[in-house]
Parts: sequence; structure tokens; C-alpha cells
Amino acid sequence: MTDVALFGAGRIGKIHAGNIVRQPGVRLKYVVDVNATAAAELAQKYGAQVGSAEQVFGDAVVKAVVIGSSTRAAAAKKAIFCEKPVDLSLARARDCAQAVAKAGVTCLIGFQRRYDPTFAALKDRLAAGEIGEPQMLLVTSRDPGPPPVDYIKVSGGIFKDMLIHDFDIFRWILGDEAATVHATGSCLTDPAIATAGDIDAAAVTIRTRRGRLAQINTSRRAAYGYDQRFEVLGSKGMLQAGNHKPTEVTAATAQSVSLDKPEHFFLERYRVAYANEMAHFFDALAKGAPVKTTIEDGVKALELAEAATTSWREKRIVEL
Amino acid sequence: MTDVALFGAGRIGKIHAGNIVRQPGVRLKYVVDVNATAAAELAQKYGAQVGSAEQVFGDAVVKAVVIGSSTRAAAAKKAIFCEKPVDLSLARARDCAQAVAKAGVTCLIGFQRRYDPTFAALKDRLAAGEIGEPQMLLVTSRDPGPPPVDYIKVSGGIFKDMLIHDFDIFRWILGDEAATVHATGSCLTDPAIATAGDIDAAAVTIRTRRGRLAQINTSRRAAYGYDQRFEVLGSKGMLQAGNHKPTEVTAATAQSVSLDKPEHFFLERYRVAYANEMAHFFDALAKGAPVKTTIEDGVKALELAEAATTSWREKRIVEL
Amino acid sequence: MTDVALFGAGRIGKIHAGNIVRQPGVRLKYVVDVNATAAAELAQKYGAQVGSAEQVFGDAVVKAVVIGSSTRAAAAKKAIFCEKPVDLSLARARDCAQAVAKAGVTCLIGFQRRYDPTFAALKDRLAAGEIGEPQMLLVTSRDPGPPPVDYIKVSGGIFKDMLIHDFDIFRWILGDEAATVHATGSCLTDPAIATAGDIDAAAVTIRTRRGRLAQINTSRRAAYGYDQRFEVLGSKGMLQAGNHKPTEVTAATAQSVSLDKPEHFFLERYRVAYANEMAHFFDALAKGAPVKTTIEDGVKALELAEAATTSWREKRIVEL
Amino acid sequence: MTDVALFGAGRIGKIHAGNIVRQPGVRLKYVVDVNATAAAELAQKYGAQVGSAEQVFGDAVVKAVVIGSSTRAAAAKKAIFCEKPVDLSLARARDCAQAVAKAGVTCLIGFQRRYDPTFAALKDRLAAGEIGEPQMLLVTSRDPGPPPVDYIKVSGGIFKDMLIHDFDIFRWILGDEAATVHATGSCLTDPAIATAGDIDAAAVTIRTRRGRLAQINTSRRAAYGYDQRFEVLGSKGMLQAGNHKPTEVTAATAQSVSLDKPEHFFLERYRVAYANEMAHFFDALAKGAPVKTTIEDGVKALELAEAATTSWREKRIVEL
Repeated sequence: MTDVALFGAGRIGKIHAGNIVRQPGVRLKYVVDVNATAAAELAQKYGAQVGSAEQVFGDAVVKAVVIGSSTRAAAAKKAIFCEKPVDLSLARARDCAQAVAKAGVTCLIGFQRRYDPTFAALKDRLAAGEIGEPQMLLVTSRDPGPPPVDYIKVSGGIFKDMLIHDFDIFRWILGDEAATVHATGSCLTDPAIATAGDIDAAAVTIRTRRGRLAQINTSRRAAYGYDQRFEVLGSKGMLQAGNHKPTEVTAATAQSVSLDKPEHFFLERYRVAYANEMAHFFDALAKGAPVKTTIEDGVKALELAEAATTSWREKRIVEL
Repeated sequence: MTDVALFGAGRIGKIHAGNIVRQPGVRLKYVVDVNATAAAELAQKYGAQVGSAEQVFGDAVVKAVVIGSSTRAAAAKKAIFCEKPVDLSLARARDCAQAVAKAGVTCLIGFQRRYDPTFAALKDRLAAGEIGEPQMLLVTSRDPGPPPVDYIKVSGGIFKDMLIHDFDIFRWILGDEAATVHATGSCLTDPAIATAGDIDAAAVTIRTRRGRLAQINTSRRAAYGYDQRFEVLGSKGMLQAGNHKPTEVTAATAQSVSLDKPEHFFLERYRVAYANEMAHFFDALAKGAPVKTTIEDGVKALELAEAATTSWREKRIVEL
Repeated sequence: MTDVALFGAGRIGKIHAGNIVRQPGVRLKYVVDVNATAAAELAQKYGAQVGSAEQVFGDAVVKAVVIGSSTRAAAAKKAIFCEKPVDLSLARARDCAQAVAKAGVTCLIGFQRRYDPTFAALKDRLAAGEIGEPQMLLVTSRDPGPPPVDYIKVSGGIFKDMLIHDFDIFRWILGDEAATVHATGSCLTDPAIATAGDIDAAAVTIRTRRGRLAQINTSRRAAYGYDQRFEVLGSKGMLQAGNHKPTEVTAATAQSVSLDKPEHFFLERYRVAYANEMAHFFDALAKGAPVKTTIEDGVKALELAEAATTSWREKRIVEL
Repeated sequence: MTDVALFGAGRIGKIHAGNIVRQPGVRLKYVVDVNATAAAELAQKYGAQVGSAEQVFGDAVVKAVVIGSSTRAAAAKKAIFCEKPVDLSLARARDCAQAVAKAGVTCLIGFQRRYDPTFAALKDRLAAGEIGEPQMLLVTSRDPGPPPVDYIKVSGGIFKDMLIHDFDIFRWILGDEAATVHATGSCLTDPAIATAGDIDAAAVTIRTRRGRLAQINTSRRAAYGYDQRFEVLGSKGMLQAGNHKPTEVTAATAQSVSLDKPEHFFLERYRVAYANEMAHFFDALAKGAPVKTTIEDGVKALELAEAATTSWREKRIVEL
């Protein structure tokens, strides 16, 4: 039986808790959260106990931590399931990666999109050569609405907060590293976001070392919901990953023919991805196998987020 | 130069006139219509003259008639482009077929759907074996709204007026003849249609001699417009012919994701089909080649329409 | 805590077991199956014990049975989750319904399609008046391949085995009862099915008391997989329920633009439906509320299946 | 009767000739081409004569020229239907615009995409406020294959040759002018294109004066054909313009569910657009009304093409 501690009893913590307890041979021992009520409720729901970081890192039976403070967890020799970004500071993220490497512990970074059935199938088919060599990638990544401005202020900005996932998709799909990054953006939906020093719309272009091209477009607000698509042009064709819809109902009326809007937001859209990701984590742990999304991936995505932030702020092309 | 006479200067007559004058080596000589104004306008538009049936059938330079009274035209040795149904009376239709055969003239029946790019492509792919042997056919055929009740009264009823096309599709696609026909229907949109002795919704089932199955559903009123689809299940797959849309615009809003409704009605939906059909007629004429939709096809479709009418009226399965 | 006994440890039994143990406050106590190994494996997986019918019906703590022999379970005052069809014999099914009524126990018939997100959403939107009054229903219901002929021999035939679900959809969606049923069919894929006295392709037409029309088409073998669609034409528009796909990947190559085939078969297609159905059962039980799919629904669907069988065998329209 | 001279009897010249002769009250008088055979064939087909530039500009009855040398035509007071780009030299294009302004003649630039039914419908709906204020534009513009390298050498490069249309779409849809342009690209399909000093894949980002963002991606070779899509994100939703398909056939087989590839290339995809464009030209001429695509639009698009070329060559963001 593998005992696990969960840090965070919020929205995503609840998802992770549900997925943890569904793993065979895995037990949720602790729930840790500064919000004591939230921690208690979640702990009770799954027969776990409320704990503190001290307890968790001092408890030898705890083998893994989820959404953990990675450096400390590494030092305590726990396997780590770490939400992105590793850290808003690239220096600290690199330190953390070093600590993980030194401790030799498993560390999975929560780039859950790689575990999404649609995205993973596309990647598999690309890897199988269905469209030849990848040449161009277009990523559309839009939220249904912005988070509170107070969150935006401490979020690290749109590139670290939202596009970190898209930078990971870029590396995963094109299989190449960035040579240059260009980013531009605007604040078009809410002036308070600009006041907070951030933007709500961005356009990023990456050229890889092998000359492949990627364009990412993002908005903090799409009136029609959560929009998560990408397409790859290859030498022999194109693969597109489309949005998921709640149902397959089509309505034809005197006004129009209409379909469902995309799944509302990330909790719905990536529900299966979160479950797959957690299963992969414990499966890799059980087998001593490497994880698919490593802390190095987390650091690399953060480097791109920093480069994009610099490009946007300084209005110049950044070379990597 | 092939001189042609056009009978009928109404909605469909105008379409045919436009298609006639676009054929190389073809000249529209006469327009004949009891509505003298309509005839004059159409004749003037295309440099033709208003004529009478007597003139047309007595004029040796006229080689072909469009939407002609077929029996008389056959007797006058004119090639005939004949709108469906050949005649509301099956006996007269058979007489006409005999007259055509005896005269040895070309006679094309205006089953324009066979000349539609989507339907024709499906047929070609079916014939090429893409889905193996056809087993089942589903036809959806709905009008945006019913014609005036005065027209319905003289139309021969829903099976001869509307479904005649679908019966032809059935024969063309399944490549087999009907063994039994079952039809049922209702008047669901306008009681005046029932008063006129007709229905506005029908469901027809045909079993062929080789055991293949066809279902046709029809309505005189679909709130979302003209709906013309069919699908064939074969031993190796399925081919579906979908509706055509005016544009490929998709709109995603807070309410829904919406597409265009289908092309409004038959003049729009079958615009290309009508043009292809006319080109085929004159091409066959020029080459002395057989036409794709013969008067025998017209008679066979009418037989099915009669059988369906009988099945509906007498509430019994009709054997053929 | 509600203790439950599960009868059947086969394919669908496993699905139900997994859904039972996920219900809050519900415990799987017994697994019963003539296949002792299957029963033992499933029981062990979920911490239940292997039991016999005698044990189950004699154990007062067992409050509910899943896929149970309904009459006996009713006599033992257990709540019943009963797979369709209630019984292949209409007489016995009616006896069972009477026994359930007399015992006053909850009895849910496993018409899982009503719990499918797409189908349920369509029904809700129909009920909300989005397309006005329903007029016509088209149901396509095709399996990826036939079951073993030995199964077909004891299955009750295509109408009781496969179309029972579609007959339920018909009643649920059109909200009206059948006045006449016409069915025809053929054996087109495997002569052994004909030898077993059954068919593999069927076309059914139902006219309701209010004149609404339904067409059902079915095949035991669709080369492209499991095909489960239906559409309703209403006075103000149309609602269509389409197939679900495993992923939203589109591939464009020199050959074609292609999408995923539908979910492979019922275990995949109705995975969510089975879970929703079980949750509904225990929720209704906890609240003492009526279930959505009653034993009367089971009997009514069976009546339609019998009528269709008669229509097909005797080549006549059956009045109800 | 308006007499017209057509310059160019090649691929696009033939399309224009067909559209010219279909305009009511318009006569094709001259066909001019250095390829005497091509000129003669086309002239004969439509009852025109082969002419020279001298004849055309000296013939007072000629009221309009199509694909004409614009400056000279302006001097000769002819109305001009001018293919894009106005000129590969921005200076000469501006001179030409001045000549046109001075002569006061009608001059339509052949940005045919604005006359495409899908694109025009999207623009109309955008203008009607359906998705609020436009914020972001994504344009995908890919050819099925590159032109001969000899053509590429004299084409002005990918930005003037291919993207000139997309720059016009940008201005038309976002209704704003560019503030900054960033372009990057690669040669990924054929090294001969690089040797010719050009690229075959490009990614362009434009930020407008009002902060709106546009991304254009292009490739000279998409294995699946001609790909012409764009989408606009607005404050209240999104409008997408998709590809047109030759037919609406869907095939479901054991391998996949597949649709038609997009219309093969521009002659097919923009067939209706070319016809609409020509009709608009003569309609504007007849009414003395302004044309929708002016020589100023041609100059503006060329400015963007130059800026993009500079950005790509000098690896810097270009301000306008």
C-alpha cells in the first residue's frame, strides 16, 4: 500500500484526491491546506487525516506527495506529483530540478494536457509518421473568463500562468527546442488587468532550431467558453485536435443549425486527463519507470514563458 | 446549331432557360406558356420568340423540347427533356413511354438529383465498391414548407408529387427493384392538407427482391429548411450524402456553436444539378448516346408512388 | 449502508459492480454467478463474497439486487435493478410487473440509453419545447458485429434482443403509444443467422395514436462500428443525437479528411450512461422516489418487440 | 454596351473571360497576350478579337480593361480591373495609385477573397455586431504545392506573392491598420526555394494601432490541398470561415470516417468569388459607384508585404 499526502484542498486538489483514491494499492493519508475547513472536509470524504507539512515530511510511510513543495519533498525523498509551474522564479525552479535529480526521486510535472485522450492520440499518430515530419504548429488556448485581478497580480503574468501549458505542448509536439521567441499582446477585455501589469490577449511565435514554426494565440476571455485546440502541419498532412463537447446533440431550427459549446473549463475538459495523469504517476512509481512529464519539462516551459515575457515587455525578438 | 423549344416560363422554366442558352451549339428558339407575359419576358431575355405548341411541333428545325408534353413531342420526333412525373396517370405514362420507344427519340426524365455533385459522387463511390454491397438505404426528404393547398389538390398526392424523386433515388442507389412497399403517413402541420385528401408526413419502407431495405421519411414542412440527405449501409461501410450549406461560416457565441442552415429550397440546392442535367441532355443528343434518366425510370418511380399511395390509403403492404 | 447483491459477473456485470461500489453509502455484499471463477474474481476485486440466490434472498440486510430474477426478488422485498428485457415471454414479464407492483418494491429496468448524456440532453430540450411538438423520429441502431449464433438462437430474435432499446427510445421521445407496427427484415450478412431463425437487418415503422411516425433501422453488422443515432423532427425544428467519438482528432492527408470512428461498442458508448443509471437507482432508493425507467416501460417495449416480430413473420401490419 | 479588353489569356485570364461575357451589357472586344495562340483561342471562344496594347489604349470604345497595366490604362482613361499585387515595387504601385486618382477612373484590385460567399458572409455578420468588437484574427493560407522555382524567383517572394491576399484579409476583417509586423519563416519543403532566395513556410504577427492581434500562417505545400481558413475572436464570440468541399459525402469504413478534402486550388475554391468580383466591377462601373477593393487597398497590402519581408530578412520587428 502506497501512502500519499495531498497538499491543497481547493478546486484542483479535490480532483486529485478523487483520482488518488481510485488508484489500486494507493491510500490518501494526509490532506494539507492552510484552509483548515477545506482540508478537514476533503480528508473526511476520503478517510484521510488533516496533516501539516512537518507531519508529512517526517512520516516515513508517506511515499509520495501531490502538488507538493518540490524541493523540500525531494529532500525528504518523497516521490512528487508537482503542479505547474514548478516555480514562478526560473532560478528556484532550476534549484528544485537539481534537488530532485540529486535526491533521485520521481517527479511528475502536472502538464495534464499530455494525458488528454485527444492530445495523446494526436501525438501517437504524429509519432507513428501519419503526417510525416512536423513543420508548423498552431495552438489556440482561451479561457472562458479571467481569474480575479488579485490572482493575476501574483500569477507571474499570462505567459507563466496560462501559456506555460502551451509552451509544453509546443515542445512535446514539435519535438524540437526554441531558437527564437516573439511575443506581443494587449489588454482588450478589462483595464484592471493592464493596471495589474498584465495582458489578456497574446500572440507568440516560436522558431525552432530546425526551422519549424509555432504560433500560439491566447485570450483570457472567450465568450463561448474554454477553447483548447491545436493543429500540426506535417510534410504529409495535418492533424488537428478539436474541442470536446458535453453532448453530441445538434439542433436545427428556423434560426440556425447549432452544436454544443465546448466543455466549460479545465475541470471538465481535462477530467479524463487528470485521472490518466494520476494513474500514470502511480504506475511509474510502482514500476520504477520514468514519468512522461518531468521536472526538466517544467523548467523548459518556464524558460519559454520567461522569454515570451521579455519579448513582450521589451518589444524584441528573444534568442534562446 | 440545335434549336430548342421551352414549355413553361415559371420558376423551374427560368432555370432551364438559363441552362439551355449556356450549352454550346444550342439555341432557344421558342418559349411556350399559357401565361403570355411570362413567356414574353423569358423569350426576350434570351433572344427567343414566344411560340405555341402548334408552332413548335410543326417547326422542323426544332430538334428538342424541354418540359414537353412527351407523347405529342415523341410523335413529332423531337428529343424530349421531360420533368417528372411523366404523368399523374400510370397508364398514360406507360403510353408515353411506348410512344417514345416507338418514335425512337431521346427522352430524359428530369430526375435532377442524380446530377447533383454530392449524390453523383456517392453513387460513383458505391459503384466502385467502396462500401461493398449495398444493404440498406435511408432517405430524408423534407420541404421547408408546403405548396398552396390548391396545388396539392391537383398534385397527385405526396407520393407522386414529392416522393417520386426519392423513389428514383431508391432504384438508382440500391440497384434493385421493389418487392414490397409499405407506406403510412399523417397530416400534422395543416388540416387543410387533410381536407384536400393528402398528408404532409410520410414514412415508406421498401424491401427489394434481393432483400435490401429502404426507408424514406418525408415532411412537407421542416422549420429549418430544405433537408435532402440519404445514407447507404453496405457490407463494408456507409456512405452519407449531407445537405449543402450556403457558406462555411461557424459562429461560436455564449449561446451556442452554430452553422448555416441547409440551402433554402430546390432551386438553390439543385442549381448545379439542373445545369449538369441540361448539359448531359444536349451532350447525349450530340453523341447519340443514351441518357442517364430514361422515361422507363420515370415510369418505375411512378409505379412505386402508386404502390405507396395504395399502401397508405388501404393500410396494407403492397406487393409488386 | 445499503447492501447489494449482484447477479452476473460477466461483461455487463463487471460494469455494474464498478458502478455499485462507487455509490456513496452502498456496499456490494454478494456476487452470484453460475461461473464460480468469474464470481470469485469479481467478488474479491470489490471486497464482496460469492453468494447463491438462496443466500441473497434469505439475507435481510440485502436491500437491493442488480440484474436480479425480478419476480423472486420482488417476493423477497428487494429493490430491483433489472436488465432488459424483463423476460422473453410477454406473459411472464407481465406477471413480474404484477409481482413488483404487489410487493411495492422499486424496480428499475436497465434502459441505460435514457441516462446517456447526449440522449438525455436531447430529451430535456425536446421537453423544454425547443422544437415544438415532435412529429417524426428516426432511429439508427447498428452493432459492429453479430453475437455468436448460439446466443442468437436463445436471444428471442432481433426485435427482443436488439430493438428492445429502440422501442423504449421511441416511447420516451415521442411521448405517445404505438397504434400500428410494421416490420420487415432480411438476413444479409451471415446465412447462419437465417438458419437460426433470425434476421440481421430490420426496418420498423410505427404510427402512434396521435399520428406521429417513427422509423427504426438496424443491422447486426456495421463495418465502421457501433452506430447509435436518432433524430426527432418537431413542428419548430429538429434535434439530432449523434455518435460519440473516442477523440476529437481530425487528420487531413493526400487521401482524405478523416475523423474517429464512433465509440467501439456499448460498453464504451454507454459507460457514462451505465454509471448515471446506477447512481439514479440508489438515489431513487434513498429518496423513496420513482425511477425513470420502470418495469412498465420494460413491458411496453416488449409488447412492441412482439408486435414487430409478428409483423415481420406474418408479413402484415400489426395493430395495437 | 460596354466594350472590354482582357490582358492575359492564361489560367486566370480564362476565368475572367468567362465571367466578363456573362455580364449583361458587356462585350469582350480584345484579348491581348504575348502568347498569340492562347490569345487567339480565347478570343475565338468568346467572339472577341486578338489585340495589342496599342490597339486597346487607342480604341475609344473600350471602356474597361481587365488585368491591365494600370498606369497606362489610367492615362488612357479606362476603367481598370487589376490583379494583385499592383506592382512588386511599392514605389511604382504608389505611382500607379496616383495615376488612377489623377485620371479619376474606377480601379478594382483583384482581392477576390472579399467576394467569396463564406468570407463575405463572415464580414457582414462581424459588421452587424454578432461577435462584438474584433480582437484577434487567425489566418491559415496554404497552397497544395509550390509554383515552379523559376516563377518563385520573379514572384517578389512569399510575402508579396502569397500573403498579399492575407494582408488584405487582415485589414478588411480587423478594420484597423498595422502598428508592428513580425515575420519569420523557413524553407522546409524544397531546398531549391531557399536557393531562389525565398521560403516556403511563414508565420506573421501583426499588432494593430488599437492593440488588436493577427497571426497568419502559410505554407507553399499542404499535402491535403488548398487550405484557406480564418477565424476572428470578438468580445462576444468567434466567427470562423472554413474550407469549401467539392461534395458533402461522408464515408464510414472499418478504417475511419472521412470527408472530402477542400476544393483543390484557387480556381475551384474562388470560382464564385471571381464571378462575383467581375459582376461587382461592372455593376460599380454602370452605377458610377465606388468599388469594394480599391487601389489603395492594393498599396496597403503591399506595404505590409514589404514590412513582413523586411522583418523576416532582418530578423526584427518592423514598425509602421
